[in-house]
Amino acid sequence: MKHIAILGSSGSIGTQALEVIRDNPGRFKVSVLTAGNNAGLLIEQAREFKPLQVVIGDERKYDEVRSALEGLGIEVFAGEQALTEVVQHPVIDVVLTAVVGFCGLRPTIAAIQAGKHIALANKETLVVAGELVNALAKKYQVSILPVDSEHSAIFQCLQGEQGNRIEKIYLTASGGPFRGKSREFLTSVTKVQALKHPNWVMGAKITIDSASLMNKGLEVIEAKWLFDLEPAQIDVIVHPQSIIHSIVQFQDGSMKAQMGLPDMKLPIQYALGYPDRILNTFPRFDFLKHTEMTFEQPDRRTFRNLGFAFDAMARGGNSPCVLNAANEIVVQAFLTDRLGFLEMSDVIEKCMSEVSYIRDPNLDDFIETDAETRKFASQLVTNY
Amino acid sequence: MKHIAILGSSGSIGTQALEVIRDNPGRFKVSVLTAGNNAGLLIEQAREFKPLQVVIGDERKYDEVRSALEGLGIEVFAGEQALTEVVQHPVIDVVLTAVVGFCGLRPTIAAIQAGKHIALANKETLVVAGELVNALAKKYQVSILPVDSEHSAIFQCLQGEQGNRIEKIYLTASGGPFRGKSREFLTSVTKVQALKHPNWVMGAKITIDSASLMNKGLEVIEAKWLFDLEPAQIDVIVHPQSIIHSIVQFQDGSMKAQMGLPDMKLPIQYALGYPDRILNTFPRFDFLKHTEMTFEQPDRRTFRNLGFAFDAMARGGNSPCVLNAANEIVVQAFLTDRLGFLEMSDVIEKCMSEVSYIRDPNLDDFIETDAETRKFASQLVTNY
Repeated sequence: MKHIAILGSSGSIGTQALEVIRDNPGRFKVSVLTAGNNAGLLIEQAREFKPLQVVIGDERKYDEVRSALEGLGIEVFAGEQALTEVVQHPVIDVVLTAVVGFCGLRPTIAAIQAGKHIALANKETLVVAGELVNALAKKYQVSILPVDSEHSAIFQCLQGEQGNRIEKIYLTASGGPFRGKSREFLTSVTKVQALKHPNWVMGAKITIDSASLMNKGLEVIEAKWLFDLEPAQIDVIVHPQSIIHSIVQFQDGSMKAQMGLPDMKLPIQYALGYPDRILNTFPRFDFLKHTEMTFEQPDRRTFRNLGFAFDAMARGGNSPCVLNAANEIVVQAFLTDRLGFLEMSDVIEKCMSEVSYIRDPNLDDFIETDAETRKFASQLVTNY
Repeated sequence: MKHIAILGSSGSIGTQALEVIRDNPGRFKVSVLTAGNNAGLLIEQAREFKPLQVVIGDERKYDEVRSALEGLGIEVFAGEQALTEVVQHPVIDVVLTAVVGFCGLRPTIAAIQAGKHIALANKETLVVAGELVNALAKKYQVSILPVDSEHSAIFQCLQGEQGNRIEKIYLTASGGPFRGKSREFLTSVTKVQALKHPNWVMGAKITIDSASLMNKGLEVIEAKWLFDLEPAQIDVIVHPQSIIHSIVQFQDGSMKAQMGLPDMKLPIQYALGYPDRILNTFPRFDFLKHTEMTFEQPDRRTFRNLGFAFDAMARGGNSPCVLNAANEIVVQAFLTDRLGFLEMSDVIEKCMSEVSYIRDPNLDDFIETDAETRKFASQLVTNY
């Protein structure tokens, strides 16, 4: 029996993880659930899964959650700081980090320091502080199991290949809803259009990131740290059908790909069940219904974020942290109609060139860089 | 250093295996070379690789080979029986069985009984006598490493997946030079047309088998024995670009595929080097040059051999042996203009229904079934 803590249980990944756990009662037990502000769903989940502890991020909702769960023997906490405490509970084996953004960094570090394995859906943790997180994972001998479908694909392809050098990986990208569109077209697109992802059902932030190719950029940096790669070993290929989830090319030229229908439950289940593949009833892929797969180069001129991510990765230090913080601000601004689609990249570019560079940042440096960038980006947004 | 015996060194697989070995002098040493009747090439290869022993199948060429290799310290033998002896040389680690047809069975069994690992390019061995060969491999604790590109693909995808049940495998098929053609068109096709494979450069027998889909049928049976599958777990999908070499679907629905340019040197090198992937300079796959992959159902009405193979697999016993022997005769007849393309299937069908069924054949039964079927098929051919 694996005991699981889910940070961000009310989100897209969190709810799908609970579906996986519900289907495998003899294999998984929920120990901790946390949600940002969806108290109603958190209460419902807690009543069903009976965790030991829950956290509601929004402190104003503490009383609501506590009284709703009274008498069930569930400890209730509130506030962001509580996340770093609940992940340390001795019974926990795996912490699924399914919160969005920089706020996942501190609880992930706390979990690693408490010796918990990480099922990583919060890619920003590795984007911002990959070197630091990897060093801690090594020190505390914990595994970081990817949940992102692309990284899960690479991870699956690497099983049994210990000692065989990776020549290159290809992260596949659907291209998002605006694949093939011109910059002119993109000047006037709305959040409603951007939120219509052609293949994947995901949360709002990552869906906008997919439309702007920033998601793929963040995944490139995440892949660097997960699989110990040099920038030149990472390539992005647009594959609009999202059937091949990513590809590893080994030093003999042989390539392995992981494929299937675009369904996040599979990589979630794989990360939680690893190394076992659990029998399930998810829909199966059928070649006769998907008779064509195509591949094309990403349009880096139109979607500038992908290049920014490669730049940030090459510069290292706190650059990816700046990239990520600026992006979190602009996506929020786009989702609240304060910034146009293409303007997101303009603000990010400005932050990348203006925020002070730190070569070897520690955790405090990251926290400061994040705060400084958010402030600067927010100022830029108000000027649009 | 791995010591390699190559049965069939003058053929397509044999010569490519020697290229691999030539490129890796510190890793592989050739101990034995054998050829059917190409004495000139065998002599050339023996002079370069200095094996301990060579065999020329055609006994009339014994003197030619012996005198050409005089003074080099190479033992020279002739005749088919010698194959079963040379594979037992104590220094040999791996026997690459790259001969074509039923004649590979006895030397393969002799090699297994001598404790040699098998790099299996002679698929007929497993098609005819998979159960018997598997039992021997288990008894003598030797590995059977597939060289066929499809089976190598499956084998590569299964690395690190011990204990994870296979739900299904998909063997990909190019469809051969006659994909999409009608039976009417096929009545008049010539061997010159049939020998033009769109993607793979291979020997004549396997190229005709590819055109008739018998090759895929034999591979289905081979896969059953290599990977311990039920017939319902094996499917064939036509993929004309031959980039995805085959696919495994696990019980969680996740699929792994092995991909690359169609180049037999890669699976040959993988089988010889296993479990290491050896750095090489083979051309690499480029998504931007291969922007489309397509998939379609095989046309079993036009290409009846595929169905015959599934039937033979389901019936078991000596049925696959009958299938294979009949096919060897008809391909030879087609290659010598004694039989039309579609008539090959007619003769095979007749053999399948007429040759006596044996439920639990032993080696002698296989030898007898093979001889009986050849005789019967040859008679049928003369009546066309």
